[in-house]
Amino acid sequence: MHILITNDDGYTSKGLQALIEMARGLGEITVVAPQYHQSAMSNAVSIGKLLRMVPVENPDGTPEKEIRRYYCSGTPVDCVKMALNLLFDQRKPDLLLSGINHGFNGSSAVIYSGTLAATCEGALYKIPSIAFSLNDHHADADFSASIYYGKIILEQFLKNPPQPYTYVNVNIPQGGINEIKGIRLGRFGMGAWIKEIESRTDPYGHPYYWMVGEYENLEPDDPECDHNLLAENYVTIVPHKIDNTNYPELERLKEVWKDLTRERKK
Amino acid sequence: MHILITNDDGYTSKGLQALIEMARGLGEITVVAPQYHQSAMSNAVSIGKLLRMVPVENPDGTPEKEIRRYYCSGTPVDCVKMALNLLFDQRKPDLLLSGINHGFNGSSAVIYSGTLAATCEGALYKIPSIAFSLNDHHADADFSASIYYGKIILEQFLKNPPQPYTYVNVNIPQGGINEIKGIRLGRFGMGAWIKEIESRTDPYGHPYYWMVGEYENLEPDDPECDHNLLAENYVTIVPHKIDNTNYPELERLKEVWKDLTRERKK
Repeated sequence: MHILITNDDGYTSKGLQALIEMARGLGEITVVAPQYHQSAMSNAVSIGKLLRMVPVENPDGTPEKEIRRYYCSGTPVDCVKMALNLLFDQRKPDLLLSGINHGFNGSSAVIYSGTLAATCEGALYKIPSIAFSLNDHHADADFSASIYYGKIILEQFLKNPPQPYTYVNVNIPQGGINEIKGIRLGRFGMGAWIKEIESRTDPYGHPYYWMVGEYENLEPDDPECDHNLLAENYVTIVPHKIDNTNYPELERLKEVWKDLTRERKK
Repeated sequence: MHILITNDDGYTSKGLQALIEMARGLGEITVVAPQYHQSAMSNAVSIGKLLRMVPVENPDGTPEKEIRRYYCSGTPVDCVKMALNLLFDQRKPDLLLSGINHGFNGSSAVIYSGTLAATCEGALYKIPSIAFSLNDHHADADFSASIYYGKIILEQFLKNPPQPYTYVNVNIPQGGINEIKGIRLGRFGMGAWIKEIESRTDPYGHPYYWMVGEYENLEPDDPECDHNLLAENYVTIVPHKIDNTNYPELERLKEVWKDLTRERKK
């Protein structure tokens, strides 16, 4: 088995090394991770920008035959595209893992998440793809419970992979193995941010802005929403699909638009 | 009525001006568009990066009272967040329009599209949001048919807005009004790219890469897919929803995982 690993925090992050530990022993590993922090880059692709990909040594001395490791100058999705096109030749990885992200990546945060976008990219090429995020944004976060639960989750998905064009989002609460209540399957929980822009004035008298924001849970009472399950100290698993057509809305619009879509028919 | 307009090709693009023409007369207009080309930026947000937003004059001399116009140094989603937080105070725009993109934005291209991401952001804040793209990437593309059909589509959506948390994707084929067969509602058509990376060597002997690629239509026979309808010379409309949980897969996984998710229940 060949496993492709990426993330959005960059190739030197502690979470990436934790993900490698989670996957170690399951097969050959290829790591292509961003050169620098690429959080909130969503599914961005570097069209029209020069890209670099550079091999790097494993920090723990693991031989390249077991784990080959590169950084890429682009986004998480660039990393996946570079790996698939340049390192896998005619074959494909059997599994794509992304993370472990330093910080929660459920609810509406998935819209912006580079960690999750890498798995969307894997799913587009029909590779079973799983994203892991720990609800702790500190650089020195403790990933031991993430590795413990991650191994259980990987084993299960290797026995029973997700459906095609579906990618899997795993979020792990903070705390030790015994503080976590268990694993729950859930759905995307709607949330949004308020007070997102902080205004400042530069030394030359011109305004500039920082993206900040306070998260508002818009579905606080639904026990199936990932953010609510995580708040209850469960590891959450949500299957996402690439095709986000709103099919019920499509049927409703067909009725509403029937005169206009009939016009000028052949 | 107050309309917020953005795009991903930048504040000087011809497509942006065409979208303003499409919306002119429907209400007050606020334009916040990227300073530079931001194609394929998806839902990326500039976390940790300094942002600027600068007022600019209308090139055709329209007074600021009618159309206020800014460029923003960030991504299309940054533009929307900056506009909502800094320019709309306690109220919200009644409509968000994005585009008109120079180039097709249907099928799997929606994953990477900054044009569409701006409407996703609008939908997250419950603003009726519609993206427009013309299947012509040239800087001097002819937008007259886009404006003609866009006005029909706007009128219809103002009478009957899309459901909450749903954003609308409109693609217009190349050609004049009379070459276009009409309007069709459809769904996301699956496609993917091959041969995406072109390798080169710099003058110092180091490799570098460009993102390129050939599009492969993975559902060429489904008459409901947007890329197929566009190829038949129809204007296509697809409703997308923010929540892309794969609900049938969630139910399947609940069955598969029932032993593991039962463990350690309170």
